Amino acid sequence: MTWTVHLSGEIHTDWRQRIEDGARAAGLDVAFTAPVTDHSASDDCGAAILGEPGDQFFRDQLGAGVNAVRTRTQMDRADIVVVRFGEQYKQWNAAFDAGAASARGKPLITLHPAEHDHALKEVDRAALAVCREPEQVVAVLRYAVAGQLDRAGV
Amino acid sequence: MTWTVHLSGEIHTDWRQRIEDGARAAGLDVAFTAPVTDHSASDDCGAAILGEPGDQFFRDQLGAGVNAVRTRTQMDRADIVVVRFGEQYKQWNAAFDAGAASARGKPLITLHPAEHDHALKEVDRAALAVCREPEQVVAVLRYAVAGQLDRAGV
Amino acid sequence: MTWTVHLSGEIHTDWRQRIEDGARAAGLDVAFTAPVTDHSASDDCGAAILGEPGDQFFRDQLGAGVNAVRTRTQMDRADIVVVRFGEQYKQWNAAFDAGAASARGKPLITLHPAEHDHALKEVDRAALAVCREPEQVVAVLRYAVAGQLDRAGV
Amino acid sequence: MTWTVHLSGEIHTDWRQRIEDGARAAGLDVAFTAPVTDHSASDDCGAAILGEPGDQFFRDQLGAGVNAVRTRTQMDRADIVVVRFGEQYKQWNAAFDAGAASARGKPLITLHPAEHDHALKEVDRAALAVCREPEQVVAVLRYAVAGQLDRAGV
Amino acid sequence: MTWTVHLSGEIHTDWRQRIEDGARAAGLDVAFTAPVTDHSASDDCGAAILGEPGDQFFRDQLGAGVNAVRTRTQMDRADIVVVRFGEQYKQWNAAFDAGAASARGKPLITLHPAEHDHALKEVDRAALAVCREPEQVVAVLRYAVAGQLDRAGV
Amino acid sequence: MTWTVHLSGEIHTDWRQRIEDGARAAGLDVAFTAPVTDHSASDDCGAAILGEPGDQFFRDQLGAGVNAVRTRTQMDRADIVVVRFGEQYKQWNAAFDAGAASARGKPLITLHPAEHDHALKEVDRAALAVCREPEQVVAVLRYAVAGQLDRAGV
Amino acid sequence: MTWTVHLSGEIHTDWRQRIEDGARAAGLDVAFTAPVTDHSASDDCGAAILGEPGDQFFRDQLGAGVNAVRTRTQMDRADIVVVRFGEQYKQWNAAFDAGAASARGKPLITLHPAEHDHALKEVDRAALAVCREPEQVVAVLRYAVAGQLDRAGV
Amino acid sequence: MTWTVHLSGEIHTDWRQRIEDGARAAGLDVAFTAPVTDHSASDDCGAAILGEPGDQFFRDQLGAGVNAVRTRTQMDRADIVVVRFGEQYKQWNAAFDAGAASARGKPLITLHPAEHDHALKEVDRAALAVCREPEQVVAVLRYAVAGQLDRAGV
Repeated sequence: MTWTVHLSGEIHTDWRQRIEDGARAAGLDVAFTAPVTDHSASDDCGAAILGEPGDQFFRDQLGAGVNAVRTRTQMDRADIVVVRFGEQYKQWNAAFDAGAASARGKPLITLHPAEHDHALKEVDRAALAVCREPEQVVAVLRYAVAGQLDRAGV
Repeated sequence: MTWTVHLSGEIHTDWRQRIEDGARAAGLDVAFTAPVTDHSASDDCGAAILGEPGDQFFRDQLGAGVNAVRTRTQMDRADIVVVRFGEQYKQWNAAFDAGAASARGKPLITLHPAEHDHALKEVDRAALAVCREPEQVVAVLRYAVAGQLDRAGV
Repeated sequence: MTWTVHLSGEIHTDWRQRIEDGARAAGLDVAFTAPVTDHSASDDCGAAILGEPGDQFFRDQLGAGVNAVRTRTQMDRADIVVVRFGEQYKQWNAAFDAGAASARGKPLITLHPAEHDHALKEVDRAALAVCREPEQVVAVLRYAVAGQLDRAGV
Repeated sequence: MTWTVHLSGEIHTDWRQRIEDGARAAGLDVAFTAPVTDHSASDDCGAAILGEPGDQFFRDQLGAGVNAVRTRTQMDRADIVVVRFGEQYKQWNAAFDAGAASARGKPLITLHPAEHDHALKEVDRAALAVCREPEQVVAVLRYAVAGQLDRAGV
Repeated sequence: MTWTVHLSGEIHTDWRQRIEDGARAAGLDVAFTAPVTDHSASDDCGAAILGEPGDQFFRDQLGAGVNAVRTRTQMDRADIVVVRFGEQYKQWNAAFDAGAASARGKPLITLHPAEHDHALKEVDRAALAVCREPEQVVAVLRYAVAGQLDRAGV
Repeated sequence: MTWTVHLSGEIHTDWRQRIEDGARAAGLDVAFTAPVTDHSASDDCGAAILGEPGDQFFRDQLGAGVNAVRTRTQMDRADIVVVRFGEQYKQWNAAFDAGAASARGKPLITLHPAEHDHALKEVDRAALAVCREPEQVVAVLRYAVAGQLDRAGV
Repeated sequence: MTWTVHLSGEIHTDWRQRIEDGARAAGLDVAFTAPVTDHSASDDCGAAILGEPGDQFFRDQLGAGVNAVRTRTQMDRADIVVVRFGEQYKQWNAAFDAGAASARGKPLITLHPAEHDHALKEVDRAALAVCREPEQVVAVLRYAVAGQLDRAGV
Repeated sequence: MTWTVHLSGEIHTDWRQRIEDGARAAGLDVAFTAPVTDHSASDDCGAAILGEPGDQFFRDQLGAGVNAVRTRTQMDRADIVVVRFGEQYKQWNAAFDAGAASARGKPLITLHPAEHDHALKEVDRAALAVCREPEQVVAVLRYAVAGQLDRAGV
């Protein structure tokens, strides 16, 4: 049984890579999905494919639509959704994804530094685990997928 | 037919009052719901009712749970969900509510200044209307509820 | 028990009025809902409330969003959905509403002249009754709501 | 992960072939489904299998039922639904499919010439991307499935 | 809190009347719904309203559609569904309703003589109570609605 | 893409075999499921596994439960549900399955002789095709699965 | 807006009365529902209404079915579900109700002494608030329903 | 077709092994899932991965969350859910899982000694089979999956 895990949220650090590396090292049968993490591609995809609308608001709307073709399908197929909030930016799309995952009954894991705890309290309340480091996410996945707990390993 | 409209998000300005006043002035058959907008009550409700946990993270989690008893029920009953993003703060709970509303098929209206357009592009893409001012929300409600369009009135 | 019936589709003839008059004459406990049937209001509502976008495509999209705030809520609440296809125009929104109603398990009644039978065969297949005249819709509602069949009356 | 994409709508031009060719050329892991595109088979299938009913309305209804056995199952399994509106015909079944896809939360892409923009505004409002050419659909799929954006390629 | 109870199935005996009388005598806050129980009206309603199709199969299909406008709405609104199987006839529509009620999670009560136990074993397995007499249905409703158990009363 | 087709209903004739043979001959990618068709096993399975309850009503209930473990799972997985009504017996479980399939939005095909048309009118109204012979079911499946219509073949 | 709150679980102490009294004293617009709390009526209802089956296992099953007619409907209608675990007994039906409420997305509040914390950890994890005393439940309801927090009052 | 069967509940005896051995011996195409059955790992997983919270209640909550990442996904994917209640402990999580499985329409099998019949009557009422021994569960699975009934074998 392959587990599908969607990695949503912040796109400026290597947290996805660290989770994927950790899962591979642990030999977990997990398939990861993610939004397009090339920031400019993510911003430009709508206008590049559908044409420049000549207005920034609608340019963003075109792009958000094209990105959603990818991410909604990924979310639909995910067994587990991990949402990462980084140190910077508003990251409202991350919180939006967390809300959507929660409303659809998907097991949710959040990943963020403690400084965001208060601002994220509603999001964390809907999560089954609140992690600080990608390696903790790997440990949760290892426990969930393979039933293994490494007490010294995190 | 009474329409139930949930007003989620920012709690530091008078936008809810302006929408409610506008709806009343227009004679709309609308019942509004909202989270508790007293910031300290919203932060303290969990610990005050269930006991101080002696840890800030869990204190926030207790509070978020008690607030969710209110807001989840309100969201369930809402015909329309309006989510406001103000100039300050992270407001991740607002984006979380927007994601939940969208996933449950609730008609969504967002309300925020243009400076947030880029950061909110995914949230706005899921909305049926993106407003700048509370009076525009009133106009959308007036059109939706009463079928009236005041071309000069906004 | 009040029955809520949504009257979707063509907005250029008096079919809604005839159904509402017939239901009233029959003393049926029915509440009717409908989109805004003022064609220019329906076209302009987005731009009038949210601002002129300076582009026809996006102007239409703004308007369609604002109209959907009304019609999606009405559809959600409807016990029965009636969709009318008139002699003219593409009326794709009518077929779209029929598809949405069908997918959501709402009892569907179509109303259109026989000349559209072939083009509407998929839509009619999803309907529980295919009517030619508004008075037939009234007769179906009378039977459904009040349990009365006037054999000579249609 | 194979993505399943249902291609609904117009059956008189080669748009499906162009999308399938483009997806193959791009090496995308996509399985396409479609209604039976042989117009006369689609019209006759009910009567040919179940018997001639001796009435055109019921002949159409028999055929629409048999076609629906195919298309409803395809729609159920689709990750993404593409709906094409051509230059001619009423194409109400296309709009019906778009409505059903939207009500079931399937990511929707429309494909049609600009001349239909106004008539399709409600349908387009429910779509995540509005394309003019099949190659744009391929580009959206390439971005969604493979995460690749060819800025010069469309 | 009014409870809505749909009384489906056999239409040739007075079982509905006995249940309604019993509920009234017990002062229960229950609203009952039922299909049209005039057998010939139920058979003729399609053809009478929509026109004679000149074929018995399609005549039955027209009638079944019109009846379903009534019964599907009633079923949607029902808190509890009671299905009665009498001594005669196939009564497949009763079993069909029981299957639909069960699939939608509606509490189901069956009412039939013991001679049908073996043939109805799958239907009864999906029911929460299997009654022999209408007065037992009243007693179940009295217990469910009012919390009253008359140990000697049945 | 393998299509899963559940064959529910009558267990005394060879209709399942004829459909499976026909599908194999046509080279269709279909997996068929069915209830246990050994009548005495179907009657006895509950008591044989769980113990004799010493009462016929409860004996039937035990058996119906064990059978439902099989058939509910099969129904859940089915893309298409075929329900056969034979010449004899009450066959209420067949109609129950048809109701459940319909309520869950599964494409439904019925198979029965014309003599049952009137008694099955509500069930047939919920079906997408009403067949008289197993070979017609094969033809519908061939059209649905493979897109092939043999005009002379049925 | 009346809030409907279902009070499930332990039936041997006055916790329901204390919650109802507290809600009334606070002037909350709440309608409470509950299972039949007369233990012997709850045990006997099936046999008393449907007949003695002459076997304790089936006697319990008859009773559980009749009780479920009441409680499933109450649960369906509840905005909020409160589940109480007392000091004694297995109370598996309470945990069963909590699981059902959680799976259906109902806001859940648990009420139990701290000694049960470890055994109830999975149930509590699905709850939005874990209370020790009925007065805390009242305080949560007061906050949820009326938006009032009495910091000294609990 | 592989059947997925989730084995929930008691973790102190070898019942899972006996079911898995029996299914293998019978050659059934079944994949079994289960919670982590190492009691101390199950208790400690939250604190070990996410950090010691310094409070037993929250320690349990952390652990319950991490366990739920595993079990909710397993439950989502299960075709059939088996819940075992042993002789000891409260086992509220077992009843919670049974409630969740039932609310989601999963075929449910319970496994427990007769001494628990009365306390489990509501849970058993929601089950399709109540077994005393793991070998009976194997026999039910064999019947369901392979259609084989060994009348002498249990």
